[in-house]
Amino acid sequence: MTQQSASAYLAHGQIPFFRLPVAPIVARSPPPGTRAVLVGVPYDGGTTYRPGARLAPFEIRRVSALVQGFHPEHGLAVFERLRAVDGGNVVFPPFDAGAVRAAVEAAAAAVHAAGATPFLVGGDHGISLPALRAAARRHGPLAVVHIDAHLDTSGPETWGEAFHHGTPFRHALEEGLVAEGQLHQIGMRGPWGSAADVELGMAHGARIHTTADIATRGIAGVAAEVRRAIGDRPTYLSFDVDAVDPAFAPGTGTPVPGGLTSREALQLVRELAGVHLVGADVVEVSPPFDHADVTSFLAAYLLFEALAVAALRVPVSKDG
Amino acid sequence: MTQQSASAYLAHGQIPFFRLPVAPIVARSPPPGTRAVLVGVPYDGGTTYRPGARLAPFEIRRVSALVQGFHPEHGLAVFERLRAVDGGNVVFPPFDAGAVRAAVEAAAAAVHAAGATPFLVGGDHGISLPALRAAARRHGPLAVVHIDAHLDTSGPETWGEAFHHGTPFRHALEEGLVAEGQLHQIGMRGPWGSAADVELGMAHGARIHTTADIATRGIAGVAAEVRRAIGDRPTYLSFDVDAVDPAFAPGTGTPVPGGLTSREALQLVRELAGVHLVGADVVEVSPPFDHADVTSFLAAYLLFEALAVAALRVPVSKDG
Amino acid sequence: MTQQSASAYLAHGQIPFFRLPVAPIVARSPPPGTRAVLVGVPYDGGTTYRPGARLAPFEIRRVSALVQGFHPEHGLAVFERLRAVDGGNVVFPPFDAGAVRAAVEAAAAAVHAAGATPFLVGGDHGISLPALRAAARRHGPLAVVHIDAHLDTSGPETWGEAFHHGTPFRHALEEGLVAEGQLHQIGMRGPWGSAADVELGMAHGARIHTTADIATRGIAGVAAEVRRAIGDRPTYLSFDVDAVDPAFAPGTGTPVPGGLTSREALQLVRELAGVHLVGADVVEVSPPFDHADVTSFLAAYLLFEALAVAALRVPVSKDG
Amino acid sequence: MTQQSASAYLAHGQIPFFRLPVAPIVARSPPPGTRAVLVGVPYDGGTTYRPGARLAPFEIRRVSALVQGFHPEHGLAVFERLRAVDGGNVVFPPFDAGAVRAAVEAAAAAVHAAGATPFLVGGDHGISLPALRAAARRHGPLAVVHIDAHLDTSGPETWGEAFHHGTPFRHALEEGLVAEGQLHQIGMRGPWGSAADVELGMAHGARIHTTADIATRGIAGVAAEVRRAIGDRPTYLSFDVDAVDPAFAPGTGTPVPGGLTSREALQLVRELAGVHLVGADVVEVSPPFDHADVTSFLAAYLLFEALAVAALRVPVSKDG
Amino acid sequence: MTQQSASAYLAHGQIPFFRLPVAPIVARSPPPGTRAVLVGVPYDGGTTYRPGARLAPFEIRRVSALVQGFHPEHGLAVFERLRAVDGGNVVFPPFDAGAVRAAVEAAAAAVHAAGATPFLVGGDHGISLPALRAAARRHGPLAVVHIDAHLDTSGPETWGEAFHHGTPFRHALEEGLVAEGQLHQIGMRGPWGSAADVELGMAHGARIHTTADIATRGIAGVAAEVRRAIGDRPTYLSFDVDAVDPAFAPGTGTPVPGGLTSREALQLVRELAGVHLVGADVVEVSPPFDHADVTSFLAAYLLFEALAVAALRVPVSKDG
Amino acid sequence: MTQQSASAYLAHGQIPFFRLPVAPIVARSPPPGTRAVLVGVPYDGGTTYRPGARLAPFEIRRVSALVQGFHPEHGLAVFERLRAVDGGNVVFPPFDAGAVRAAVEAAAAAVHAAGATPFLVGGDHGISLPALRAAARRHGPLAVVHIDAHLDTSGPETWGEAFHHGTPFRHALEEGLVAEGQLHQIGMRGPWGSAADVELGMAHGARIHTTADIATRGIAGVAAEVRRAIGDRPTYLSFDVDAVDPAFAPGTGTPVPGGLTSREALQLVRELAGVHLVGADVVEVSPPFDHADVTSFLAAYLLFEALAVAALRVPVSKDG
Repeated sequence: MTQQSASAYLAHGQIPFFRLPVAPIVARSPPPGTRAVLVGVPYDGGTTYRPGARLAPFEIRRVSALVQGFHPEHGLAVFERLRAVDGGNVVFPPFDAGAVRAAVEAAAAAVHAAGATPFLVGGDHGISLPALRAAARRHGPLAVVHIDAHLDTSGPETWGEAFHHGTPFRHALEEGLVAEGQLHQIGMRGPWGSAADVELGMAHGARIHTTADIATRGIAGVAAEVRRAIGDRPTYLSFDVDAVDPAFAPGTGTPVPGGLTSREALQLVRELAGVHLVGADVVEVSPPFDHADVTSFLAAYLLFEALAVAALRVPVSKDG
Repeated sequence: MTQQSASAYLAHGQIPFFRLPVAPIVARSPPPGTRAVLVGVPYDGGTTYRPGARLAPFEIRRVSALVQGFHPEHGLAVFERLRAVDGGNVVFPPFDAGAVRAAVEAAAAAVHAAGATPFLVGGDHGISLPALRAAARRHGPLAVVHIDAHLDTSGPETWGEAFHHGTPFRHALEEGLVAEGQLHQIGMRGPWGSAADVELGMAHGARIHTTADIATRGIAGVAAEVRRAIGDRPTYLSFDVDAVDPAFAPGTGTPVPGGLTSREALQLVRELAGVHLVGADVVEVSPPFDHADVTSFLAAYLLFEALAVAALRVPVSKDG
Repeated sequence: MTQQSASAYLAHGQIPFFRLPVAPIVARSPPPGTRAVLVGVPYDGGTTYRPGARLAPFEIRRVSALVQGFHPEHGLAVFERLRAVDGGNVVFPPFDAGAVRAAVEAAAAAVHAAGATPFLVGGDHGISLPALRAAARRHGPLAVVHIDAHLDTSGPETWGEAFHHGTPFRHALEEGLVAEGQLHQIGMRGPWGSAADVELGMAHGARIHTTADIATRGIAGVAAEVRRAIGDRPTYLSFDVDAVDPAFAPGTGTPVPGGLTSREALQLVRELAGVHLVGADVVEVSPPFDHADVTSFLAAYLLFEALAVAALRVPVSKDG
Repeated sequence: MTQQSASAYLAHGQIPFFRLPVAPIVARSPPPGTRAVLVGVPYDGGTTYRPGARLAPFEIRRVSALVQGFHPEHGLAVFERLRAVDGGNVVFPPFDAGAVRAAVEAAAAAVHAAGATPFLVGGDHGISLPALRAAARRHGPLAVVHIDAHLDTSGPETWGEAFHHGTPFRHALEEGLVAEGQLHQIGMRGPWGSAADVELGMAHGARIHTTADIATRGIAGVAAEVRRAIGDRPTYLSFDVDAVDPAFAPGTGTPVPGGLTSREALQLVRELAGVHLVGADVVEVSPPFDHADVTSFLAAYLLFEALAVAALRVPVSKDG
Repeated sequence: MTQQSASAYLAHGQIPFFRLPVAPIVARSPPPGTRAVLVGVPYDGGTTYRPGARLAPFEIRRVSALVQGFHPEHGLAVFERLRAVDGGNVVFPPFDAGAVRAAVEAAAAAVHAAGATPFLVGGDHGISLPALRAAARRHGPLAVVHIDAHLDTSGPETWGEAFHHGTPFRHALEEGLVAEGQLHQIGMRGPWGSAADVELGMAHGARIHTTADIATRGIAGVAAEVRRAIGDRPTYLSFDVDAVDPAFAPGTGTPVPGGLTSREALQLVRELAGVHLVGADVVEVSPPFDHADVTSFLAAYLLFEALAVAALRVPVSKDG
Repeated sequence: MTQQSASAYLAHGQIPFFRLPVAPIVARSPPPGTRAVLVGVPYDGGTTYRPGARLAPFEIRRVSALVQGFHPEHGLAVFERLRAVDGGNVVFPPFDAGAVRAAVEAAAAAVHAAGATPFLVGGDHGISLPALRAAARRHGPLAVVHIDAHLDTSGPETWGEAFHHGTPFRHALEEGLVAEGQLHQIGMRGPWGSAADVELGMAHGARIHTTADIATRGIAGVAAEVRRAIGDRPTYLSFDVDAVDPAFAPGTGTPVPGGLTSREALQLVRELAGVHLVGADVVEVSPPFDHADVTSFLAAYLLFEALAVAALRVPVSKDG
């Protein structure tokens, strides 16, 4: 279950995530020993501005062929330590948002059931809610590292709908999926609609690390604080690519200038090393607005960093 | 209610459709004497492949500033004959497809109620169904000129949903909105899923003019046949921009090569002169996939041709 | 071996040509009963101006998911009649042009050996030479329908090399792969380097149908003449997408304005119905210069038309 | 005069700057109580390389719809404190550069006359000169914060013309619009034509903060120094978007690599808090060279930061 | 003075028009025996909507390297018959429109004075007026073949200026540069501002061939009529690339759908064979709005067709 | 041999690097007194993923016209101190990689033979090997500053070929072109194929400064260390533009997020001041993947910084 060689995937003509073996999760359980399952969620029915995130899993798979497997900072051959597969995509009736959420939750649950960790590749940010539900059902209330330009704790006031890409963390908090004080929001920046926007999070003890905080304390400082706060709790990582500045990630729906650099973004995930990751997603990559695939490349490398964090927790085996 | 001068709209900083006066239909009835109301429908929740049509009304407005008002072939100052306004956009809760349909129908009905003709600017093709409902409620079963690469008479078999951008004419036929034998489908081309795809239309006497037919008989021949068949029936024109070849209209969701040229497309609408138009739409323009605004420009000129057809039926007045 | 449903390929996360089963030709023979094998050749080492055709097989696969299987003009369910698979890509050492030619020839020969027809998806036009060699070895001297803006019979005079994307038909003629008088070149247009450019072809009885000829006699007239000349000879079809005008096919390396429309191009292949196709290619699609995938879409539909020509020669069987 | 809701501007179909009320300045005085007027200047007749800035006001209006009104760092609801309107565009005969300058000065003067602050949205940098004239006429010699990659103090030597987008600050200095020692130029970087390029500024006591200075002292350090030097002087802020690196602002005419990041640029304006702003502009956004609207988004957020600086000086009133 | 080989121009690193020798016209007279001088005019100060045509000479030079010299329909080695050079660019103070016109006229006059024919590469359409002045001064009142989407006979009513890219043919008519009844306008299409738009032309006997006329009579029919009307008069050809449909020529400022195809455009110029060409231009190519250089390629091939028309009138010499 | 004025190069219509005189190196020796020769190498036959670098010399020349000659940090008029010419391009048979290397080496050797320093503008990274060979033949084993995202010390294991764009520094080490311990690799970042990737370099004492190192020690720190290690050794600078983050340099073949900013990249070259530069290259700019020329602009400014480093070593002369 390590990466295929270049000639192998070229011969096949198909490009799975990171050249990994393909084992569609909707069809059957992952192969025995699988530790990580990458699953695409080609759905953007929850976007409020520029759509297109539904096309991201295809593009991120394509460019991920260039990502190699040895992580020099960790000194780790990621896919040798962490048996991983491309679990295909979640399948759903695309015009029924509730059914989409159910399908995502079922797919994530199937990965959990096999003792593996799901890594979802969105799709819009609305898919994080069912992923969090599946993870919390398995592991109890979670620590959540939420990297984003936006708080995503909106209610139905603007668009008349309780569930869309701006609301997942409201529900996660209200449904008790997040352990008290364990919503860590990083990369946020204003302006906001009003001072009230942060109230829901505050009420649940969310800790907000804005880009101004990052400018002051640095990624290392912020990451260390988050790691300390999390400890060994089961943790879900949700990375909305608009946390990153539009220069580095133009291919997204609701860009906000002043974001993270790609180096900061990669470092931020990398410095979660030690955290007990039980689920992760990278969302809101919108290929129609991308250029030269730079956003898809960034997403692929962010996924790799997250996979490396998971790999670090896998005990060294004799054959692995 | 004729077009503003360049300096007038530049001074205002806002660009209504064709530099017309703005009179939002969701707020109030159009001004007395209004004959045509252009209404944007920024909704693409019904697309099955590349989204983005939600952004079209803004872009088509912008480029329509360049479209002047005198139609040389008809010898007609269109906006002097046909009092027209920019009716703003339909407003709807964007995550509730049923409510979107209701809102479109209500807006179209309000235009009809004022004795004017609605010209909808999509948005995806799903918006034609409520517009047809409103028109048929006002005028009885309609003749429909449906210009498109696709039949759009699909059922729920593929995507598990009865209403989306591939289904409006199935419902229009089944709901009796179309007069028997009066669905005129032009620009269709294969391949199709199976031979059964045309059965529903056939059962209702739909007449299909494929691009191969157009190559044989020419636009003039096809248009003459359609005009003869329609006679003086109240007629709805629905123009899906993917009827046109992707070279001329790259900015669309489900492009099919081998389509109409822009000259054929404009001629086709122009040759509907004499038809009694009671409603029209131009749909499926997707700006994220456009280049140099060529698709938006084409859409604007297609709208102008449709407005000219409507204008030709307006009796010459003393002050108009 | 018919097309997968949308949900099946979406679940898998990989998109084979036309949603067909995948059976890499470099690994093993195609499944019994296979009549057609689509093979990608991601190689553009023979281009003289704008490269990028190496990326085409991946993009054409992706967009081909939208191509359905029923051909209305032929009244034919193509993939039910013609058992077809995605044969993956040819694999080769990319910096050794001779080895690339050998690998392409071997892959094509393997398809022929299985009694099936290879459909190559380039890559640059240099790949046609080994494909012609394999076909001629199996079937003897061939009729060749060569659709292109360029003659592609150059010698080594300009670039100092006997084999590149401007030379395949020189070699095909000189090696006797083409039956006398059976090189049919369609879509050619000047200017040329000198009057001598056509001499080699003329000496071998090549028939050149320029775009000026097409404007005069129409696609139907040209196609009928080609069909008559070919009769029942085993025929190889080579389609260089730059035969088509850059408006319809911007994504190519050496564009020449004044080319075929997409409708003409599709009709041209369609009107080869009846011809005995023993091999085909679509080459010179360069995704880095494409826009909104229009060139890749066109290539996919051209391939479909070629597959339909092959399907028409398959006897109707009981099990479809 | 606060922002409209999303449904309000959607219903209207037009998108004013920041969803503010529209009150064209060329037609009449702003509404009583207006504190800020945003005015577009769609003119790029002064560009020397890549044109297109004339199109910026339309695009910046469009994307500014996404900018919300609460500024978290300042803890301020900007548009509640600062009554603002979209003043439309300056209107001018576009082929008479002198008349353009006169029209811009008149529009700015009208805003000043109403006791409000003009925020100009260019257009090329040449528009800053008439804006500075209007401001200086009202407030006397100004402190000027000039953020740019270029000095913009050229004379007529290269292009044979005294007034273009590379000359405004030469004239501002020579006309005495700038208080002695109060031209603060930030973001400058070489290479220059010769050592003499900085002489004019030096002679007037201009202070140049190059990107190398910023790398050394940081935005906070530079901003603090500028604030101290300015004190409570009436200040004009001119932001040429090419001060920012082309990665963050590709949509501009004369890009120079090595510029500010978007975070630095936003921080720089933000840290002018306390300054007494009497006029501002954001210029040189060229949409034809932009991608995914990232430069227009940045310009909108820069404007918002400038508006926030102005808002901070507005006394808190009872009715908000 | 024939074309350089590929290796010669590659070695030099500079790409003159059609790989011709460079002989800047502003510096000295063309070499003895020169029959044609290609001159760039990088000026777009007369555009009313999307600028960028100033950049066209550089891009058209670059892609013209691919255009070879033998014209198969005419059976003519164009650059062997017609000694041609790249005359560099007209040089002018770019912010003084009157001086630009004077410089263009002087450059064209210098070419005429050397007994050669100027071929101008715009720039915007305003440059045709000084070129017409120079040609008429040399040859007397001219026949003019004006290929365009627009009439370009506007007066100062809209933009307050007598000279811009929408006015050259008004002045040409009013100044008597055009022989009576010898303005042949081809490719025009509406809508227009009013019925009065054609009055000026009509009053001077202009003959307008709209795209509707072309659809009816074909390029061959229109061209034959123009040739008959012109006879052996000295003729100026002015080709505004927006005559061509935006699908084929997206890179232009004021696109109008429904235009010529590239094949029609090339044929139209080609069928001027026999006409006595004394000057020509190709204008309004705007690279910032182009894609994959398709518009620049088209412009280069249109220039080649015009050069071939000139070459056909050159007597066959012994050494040529 | 200083830069031409704007009007001079505009008149000529050709744009040499930095508006310098043109003196093709393949034709003759550079003019006496020449200190630097810029040479294009339009070859990308060694790329493994996205090609296009062959087109870079043309685009970098074009945009380099905007780069002026006075370097403010160094207080130096670069082209007055350093007599430089545009040496045109290396000419080679493009399908013979060995011959390409020979031609590049010959061209570089000719520059060295004239006592000048070659500055190569790629092209892909494979061109560095022959340039290093020529430099080492002239100057003995070199110090090499290699700025890149990748190690470029691969062997033939993946692509079956010893020489391509991923291998130049393997050969440089193995051929003894690099002085022991004098390969300074900066900007590297993982992931890598395996831990073994760095072994070859390590065995030769290469010093690797990853982006993580740069984050820690800063550009100034890294550059100082490199300068100290190099001392006065003859030094070759090789800058692969993918060292820079894709946000700043999207136009490249194998982008890796997390790279240098443009400010860091420019500073890094600038801080080599004092080093004895005997050769340099900027490679892997791929215009088909660039946007708004930002990567070409960056490459031009990087070249300028390298030229400035060379200029600093030129003794001040009386006439210079």
